[in-house]
Amino acid sequence: MKFTTQKQVRFHHCDPAGIVFYPQFFYLLHEVQEDFLNHIGFPEHVLIAGGAGVPIVDLKTEFLGMCRHGDQLTMTLELTKVGNASVGMHYEIHGEPTTRGGSSLRVRAHGVVVYSEVPHGKPVPIPDGLRNALLPYLKTSPETA
Amino acid sequence: MKFTTQKQVRFHHCDPAGIVFYPQFFYLLHEVQEDFLNHIGFPEHVLIAGGAGVPIVDLKTEFLGMCRHGDQLTMTLELTKVGNASVGMHYEIHGEPTTRGGSSLRVRAHGVVVYSEVPHGKPVPIPDGLRNALLPYLKTSPETA
Amino acid sequence: MKFTTQKQVRFHHCDPAGIVFYPQFFYLLHEVQEDFLNHIGFPEHVLIAGGAGVPIVDLKTEFLGMCRHGDQLTMTLELTKVGNASVGMHYEIHGEPTTRGGSSLRVRAHGVVVYSEVPHGKPVPIPDGLRNALLPYLKTSPETA
Amino acid sequence: MKFTTQKQVRFHHCDPAGIVFYPQFFYLLHEVQEDFLNHIGFPEHVLIAGGAGVPIVDLKTEFLGMCRHGDQLTMTLELTKVGNASVGMHYEIHGEPTTRGGSSLRVRAHGVVVYSEVPHGKPVPIPDGLRNALLPYLKTSPETA
Repeated sequence: MKFTTQKQVRFHHCDPAGIVFYPQFFYLLHEVQEDFLNHIGFPEHVLIAGGAGVPIVDLKTEFLGMCRHGDQLTMTLELTKVGNASVGMHYEIHGEPTTRGGSSLRVRAHGVVVYSEVPHGKPVPIPDGLRNALLPYLKTSPETA
Repeated sequence: MKFTTQKQVRFHHCDPAGIVFYPQFFYLLHEVQEDFLNHIGFPEHVLIAGGAGVPIVDLKTEFLGMCRHGDQLTMTLELTKVGNASVGMHYEIHGEPTTRGGSSLRVRAHGVVVYSEVPHGKPVPIPDGLRNALLPYLKTSPETA
Repeated sequence: MKFTTQKQVRFHHCDPAGIVFYPQFFYLLHEVQEDFLNHIGFPEHVLIAGGAGVPIVDLKTEFLGMCRHGDQLTMTLELTKVGNASVGMHYEIHGEPTTRGGSSLRVRAHGVVVYSEVPHGKPVPIPDGLRNALLPYLKTSPETA
Repeated sequence: MKFTTQKQVRFHHCDPAGIVFYPQFFYLLHEVQEDFLNHIGFPEHVLIAGGAGVPIVDLKTEFLGMCRHGDQLTMTLELTKVGNASVGMHYEIHGEPTTRGGSSLRVRAHGVVVYSEVPHGKPVPIPDGLRNALLPYLKTSPETA
């Protein structure tokens, strides 16, 4: 199962070239993570209030096309791994298809986050409730990221 | 040759866990790129005014340790490739060594940027003047990123 | 008539004290302005593509209460003036009422933006179509900001 | 006495019109506050670690001219009040004088911050050591903000 959400490119995402400045994509990806955690019933602010966080340890990103102010983005999240403490996250950001039939894929990213206690950041096993909520989003096909 | 610059972790870089929120590292890396381009005599705002930019197409990042508000960071940049239009950039962010003798390395990132005309983003060959200014920072040892 | 929209406080809005870092409120206010311009049929990216912008020249803000990660915010916009080129904008950000019966009002802001040509920023008269779309949101009661 | 610091307009401060997006000025003002607190020997991260913060309660800003990528800014801070718990802060941001002899003043802001315990934000009296470090920066002339 794939989690999907829509976002609009905001003025503040864009740089003097009129396109999304690349660090802003990571704010958008983190918003997708927040939306996802809300959706599966484990809001990030509740996790944090309970003494846990999901810091990122590894991130690979390909920037495949430009996004501009006002663009409607479709953002997807699938999990590539649900380990003892770590979770692999595969994100795609799609814009509108180009008029010349080009791909809509703008950004592809693969991150690894680690379920950790706050504030020291020591990894701890993912609790069963959260694990069960994550598992439906685990990709069953071979990872392509 | 390695380009080195110092930055302090600012309040606005930090999240509710009191550590740098990871997208903020990319603002810091981009500031290093700006400082580097200033240093070699090709300020980014002059490049852009002249109709060129250096958008990023690929980025791999490892987050190896936490950075906190007030930390003094030493940031380095070396080039791993100076191609026809693309440049490989290897960044390291070091904090202070831990009291228990741990490594000071907090973030390691490898990005590829492409010299391109603005606003359409079509790659164009790096002009000789810029190329000659970049070459002293090309790593001669095998890339380890 | 009052324009109203809902936003959630995001992780990236919050600082090491766990509350919204104040400059982030201005990103939220600008998002409200974007939502409003979309709603009345004059999206900001279309205005800009057409050579106009609405830079801010004056801003007064009172910060009346703290907003935390996960809070649901209700944000309102009313206009206090629709002049030849300038528009007065009165914003309120409400959180949830406190358990002790306190006010829900967290931020009150009054900004003045000027309809201007891009890129030189010279004020120009607001076109009639936009003016007519703005007027229903003009406060008729005495300005209290 | 006036506290003065220099900053360069960064790529990430700028919007699709090529000028500083106004919320970014508040990040710059907060950096000036951090630089000032470092300078007088009370770094903000040390205050926070000690259970105190200086949240802002009121802010008035005039945006008087545009700042562009690469501009060198001179930023000044003077205090307009050092009360029991509150401090009035008068900021100015100057760019380079225009070629036509115009003023260099780009932004003028007046903020009020309140010395408060963290995390509940209750105002507490400014400790004597900090008060004594602040007083040399109190404007003796009539406030003009």
